[in-house]
Amino acid sequence: MADIPKAAIIGSGLIGCGWAVAFARGGCSVALYDENADAAHRASATLAALADELEAAGMLDGQTAADIIGRVEIAGDLDAALAGAVHVQENVPEKLEIKKAVFADLDARAPRDAILASSTSALLPSAFTEHIAGRERCLVAHPINPPSLIPAVEIVPAPWTSADAMDRCTALMGRIGQKPIRMAREIDGFIMNRLQGALLQEAFRLVANGIASPEDIDTGLRDGLAPRWALLGPFETIDLNAPGGVRDYVTRYGPMYAKIAATQREHPDWTGETLDRIDAARRDRLPLEQISEAQAERDSRLVRMMKHLRDNAPNS
Amino acid sequence: MADIPKAAIIGSGLIGCGWAVAFARGGCSVALYDENADAAHRASATLAALADELEAAGMLDGQTAADIIGRVEIAGDLDAALAGAVHVQENVPEKLEIKKAVFADLDARAPRDAILASSTSALLPSAFTEHIAGRERCLVAHPINPPSLIPAVEIVPAPWTSADAMDRCTALMGRIGQKPIRMAREIDGFIMNRLQGALLQEAFRLVANGIASPEDIDTGLRDGLAPRWALLGPFETIDLNAPGGVRDYVTRYGPMYAKIAATQREHPDWTGETLDRIDAARRDRLPLEQISEAQAERDSRLVRMMKHLRDNAPNS
Repeated sequence: MADIPKAAIIGSGLIGCGWAVAFARGGCSVALYDENADAAHRASATLAALADELEAAGMLDGQTAADIIGRVEIAGDLDAALAGAVHVQENVPEKLEIKKAVFADLDARAPRDAILASSTSALLPSAFTEHIAGRERCLVAHPINPPSLIPAVEIVPAPWTSADAMDRCTALMGRIGQKPIRMAREIDGFIMNRLQGALLQEAFRLVANGIASPEDIDTGLRDGLAPRWALLGPFETIDLNAPGGVRDYVTRYGPMYAKIAATQREHPDWTGETLDRIDAARRDRLPLEQISEAQAERDSRLVRMMKHLRDNAPNS
Repeated sequence: MADIPKAAIIGSGLIGCGWAVAFARGGCSVALYDENADAAHRASATLAALADELEAAGMLDGQTAADIIGRVEIAGDLDAALAGAVHVQENVPEKLEIKKAVFADLDARAPRDAILASSTSALLPSAFTEHIAGRERCLVAHPINPPSLIPAVEIVPAPWTSADAMDRCTALMGRIGQKPIRMAREIDGFIMNRLQGALLQEAFRLVANGIASPEDIDTGLRDGLAPRWALLGPFETIDLNAPGGVRDYVTRYGPMYAKIAATQREHPDWTGETLDRIDAARRDRLPLEQISEAQAERDSRLVRMMKHLRDNAPNS
């Protein structure tokens, strides 16, 4: 039994359900709790849909959706959910006061050595864990939605988070098959939203300056840069783009990027005419009433993509 | 015959050969010319390798590698290469004086209405076409290497490039199956290197500030952000990440990105200790003597990825 860790998932929205499936697939026993009993009830359907989708795509390594679902218990009360948990993953609404209250409660009731992890994307861990007695075991484990499909997860410490808590969280995430990104300290946007933000700033800037259309910018990433990044990441990409590796690349192209960077300091206005132009381009392609249909198509394409990437991962 | 356009490819390195295969696959007759006869001779092997790779991956839509290669003639002299061409694609070394001389020569000898396109990534079209008599037909058509595999191509005008030349180049690129990105005017880095540069600046900054390791940053893009971008591009991604589309997304998350952007103005040093750290991380993963092996593995993974993306493209 010591070898089947228990994860308690707090909050049963799409992120919570994604985590429940991710932990269960990785061999954990999972208790899912939502203070809203109706929401907890609805979670069964979400869990089944996520697990079925992975099974249909052949992404369960011989397990069935029923195996996965069989490891998830929907807990009727918080204490039952927390009993015996080694990892608690919180997914409540992104409001500071709610996070503060929930973390105080979790710290008071969870087993003393359980990790208390938040899925927040917008709040720094220091913002809601400072006054908690067991604050050294609190951290952020921020997934890309849904964590049952996208493996990257940012492990972010507050200044008082212990190295032991970081170690244990990182190890558990790796064990269940996620790809943990261990940050040295907290910073707004963590890693992924900082990278995305930097790219989006330039995308908005190009539209604001009338250089290219939103569709053409989408083409440049989708049909140009991103396939390679999905295989390699940005540093490995440039490392393989010069005969002498990254050092050679920086010698060759650093000056070009420095020249470009000098024109990328200004933060473009994301609203007004620029947003009107982007919104018009998008609504021309996709009427708002078809957006949930397009999201479903994206999700099914993304499952196939992740299967493809898994099947074509390098051996190393 | 009027329906089989001829493309002349000038310069027979990897980019020139990639273009030859791309135009031939798209139904053009192709003449490949290199002033270095030895290089032209070696091109046969490169062409065959590129075409065979596409055939093996099932990316020739029922054509064979031999069909493709059969449409490519290695021309013994420049006039023979240019005779009857509607499109000339230049791929000579990235030296301003060489480009100037080659464009003057091409303008003097190519059919009057042929488009003269450069594959340059580093030079603006105005830098080497200003004093050319037929400068209104000169432009940049910048591919991502190799163009036989990666469809995005940036069509970049000098201030004097005619709309007609832009129209015809864009149309031909679309006809052969590339994805043309039509820019309104020239700018350093065009679109794709500006987007890549913006993201790289943040990647170097995160390492310089000791926030995360190079490997962890690669993980964040490869296993987090990029799979979605390879399906959708950045604007479509955020459009589908809020119930009310991109306008709703900007309302919800614009303030977070503005806060991040305020910390992204400083251009980090790409050299010194930061580069040492990135180089050490990469060399730890991949000794320099294995880099060409890793490039070959990347290329074969990339072919399969492009096939996957093509097979899973949306119907629209």
